[in-house]
Amino acid sequence: MSKYWSPAVRDLTPYVPGEQPREHMIKLNTNENPYPPASGVEKVLRDFPADHLRRYPDPVSQSLREALAQSYSVDTAQVFVGNGSDEVLAFAFQAFFRQERPISMPAITYSFYPVYCRLYGIDYRTIALGDQWQVPLEAFTADSGGIIFANPNAPTGHGHSRESIEELLKRVSECVVVVDEAYVDFGGESVVPLIQTYPNLLVTNTFSKSRSLAGLRLGFAIGSEELIEGLERIKNSFNSYPIDSVAHAAGIAALEDTQHFEDCCSRIITTRERTRRQLQQLGFDVLPSQTNFLLVRHPQYDADQLFIALRERGILVRHFNTEALRDFLRISVGTDDEMVSLTETLSELTS
Amino acid sequence: MSKYWSPAVRDLTPYVPGEQPREHMIKLNTNENPYPPASGVEKVLRDFPADHLRRYPDPVSQSLREALAQSYSVDTAQVFVGNGSDEVLAFAFQAFFRQERPISMPAITYSFYPVYCRLYGIDYRTIALGDQWQVPLEAFTADSGGIIFANPNAPTGHGHSRESIEELLKRVSECVVVVDEAYVDFGGESVVPLIQTYPNLLVTNTFSKSRSLAGLRLGFAIGSEELIEGLERIKNSFNSYPIDSVAHAAGIAALEDTQHFEDCCSRIITTRERTRRQLQQLGFDVLPSQTNFLLVRHPQYDADQLFIALRERGILVRHFNTEALRDFLRISVGTDDEMVSLTETLSELTS
Repeated sequence: MSKYWSPAVRDLTPYVPGEQPREHMIKLNTNENPYPPASGVEKVLRDFPADHLRRYPDPVSQSLREALAQSYSVDTAQVFVGNGSDEVLAFAFQAFFRQERPISMPAITYSFYPVYCRLYGIDYRTIALGDQWQVPLEAFTADSGGIIFANPNAPTGHGHSRESIEELLKRVSECVVVVDEAYVDFGGESVVPLIQTYPNLLVTNTFSKSRSLAGLRLGFAIGSEELIEGLERIKNSFNSYPIDSVAHAAGIAALEDTQHFEDCCSRIITTRERTRRQLQQLGFDVLPSQTNFLLVRHPQYDADQLFIALRERGILVRHFNTEALRDFLRISVGTDDEMVSLTETLSELTS
Repeated sequence: MSKYWSPAVRDLTPYVPGEQPREHMIKLNTNENPYPPASGVEKVLRDFPADHLRRYPDPVSQSLREALAQSYSVDTAQVFVGNGSDEVLAFAFQAFFRQERPISMPAITYSFYPVYCRLYGIDYRTIALGDQWQVPLEAFTADSGGIIFANPNAPTGHGHSRESIEELLKRVSECVVVVDEAYVDFGGESVVPLIQTYPNLLVTNTFSKSRSLAGLRLGFAIGSEELIEGLERIKNSFNSYPIDSVAHAAGIAALEDTQHFEDCCSRIITTRERTRRQLQQLGFDVLPSQTNFLLVRHPQYDADQLFIALRERGILVRHFNTEALRDFLRISVGTDDEMVSLTETLSELTS
């Protein structure tokens, strides 16, 4: 606490990301991709002319937005890019959610959303999850100041069909609906095609998970031109050049290699399902997942004690110390070898 | 204008950066460095293991902050880094300037400052420049909600001594004073040593100018631990990982090569002074500059017409179409060859 801080700073409760350990561990705590990025990314690094770095990057990241537009069959004017999807989400909260009425979000979801609300003075109400840990889309009402949820949701892994989200959009036309698709490439169904029909739909995504580029900080949003223009107004009042020249080129290279992308996602899905079955055999409850992580609990063993025991054995998973999630561990899907180590260690710890 | 925007978004007037032309031009419009970054930066790109990019970067950018702390003889806890100094400044406005009383800034200075004020709902008052186009430090009063100015100032180029800024700090102890030193390495005097005495002093700087890394987006702030903690609270409520892994490593490499840094700054200063004399011989008024740019006007020729004529001849400079600056051109200091082209072209245009 400092007398020099703006009064509002005292009330912030910053987001706490998963730890990045310095020592070597089997790292299954931040939903990183176990496979390297497309080989074109390595070529970008090798060939990038260092002299170009003395110039500012393209402030509108035109080529990267064009590549995304092509990948998603939308117009370039319907694409926004930012320094990781966290920045994109922060801009969306500023651009659309500073309204008189509170916004709505699931009670259990990406825990950064309420942090943005506190940063920007946005009121919000939460919607309790359903009995299958699903986001009950029918509970979102048209009088919200805005709606945001992750699909598939984190850290629960449950995903809705495009059809069911379209039902929501048919009901809610007066506020912006942000669908955070950070995990959609691991088996979810994207609602990007719906942006052509619903001008209040903004879809966000990231290169950090399915594109193996968490280290480069690239996120994006797809929506109607008027929503994209709203994001651009915030961005241009904050930082003219959020995307650096190297990340820009690497992002394009990652998008070009669709084969590598599909192979990695497919391998992760296969590994996830195998791990799920093995964990179930060990007595764990495993929530169905359309993501690259599993949310699990064991009826007889405390999650925090399993977390500590795994950590002592060199395996890092995520434990959220909140009332709703205290019994669970969130386990990112790594390589097959990593998941064998995990299940073997859990087998020892639960026998 | 969209009904989906937050009401405050409608009132924003985003910052307009200098243009990044696609065709080849002599580019003297955005104060970029004409020399490449340190050779270690190229080595970072060549050797960077692409596989590491699947991991999130270090959220606290520890090694880069340590390198900056060593460069500036301060503690690592007194250093903050961001995605360009624009992001650092945006965080500072949020962390310190959302106060009941208006903040103060020079009437002519970096034009992003009032943009931040509008984004965050901060009232501000402006201080008219003195008759030598200097920021009149004596006009800042202790009852401000905060004070910000660039030293040397942009786009005027005038710089104050450390001693004169310390006089201000002795008078103003109850609000944060941000000194933006983006251009200080070209002949200004840094006030970083004063942070040990004045806990309300925050100094910001960038790798974009003197370190030739505009394309990588690295900025930083140095101040008391309590001010740095305020910035961290904002950053951790906005984006856990603003600095990507490649930029992080490249920034460290740039800091290590002090010889290259000093050589580049020294060459730019020499070229600036030679160009200043040549422009004076052509009849231009040239404001004294401690930066890598010159603010100039010609008593007989309109600045906007010179701007257009230079552009037609492949030379891009900056013209600000505001009442105070309409008569001026801001010319970044390029290589000797580039400045010869500039002065020869201006000689033709003004004869």
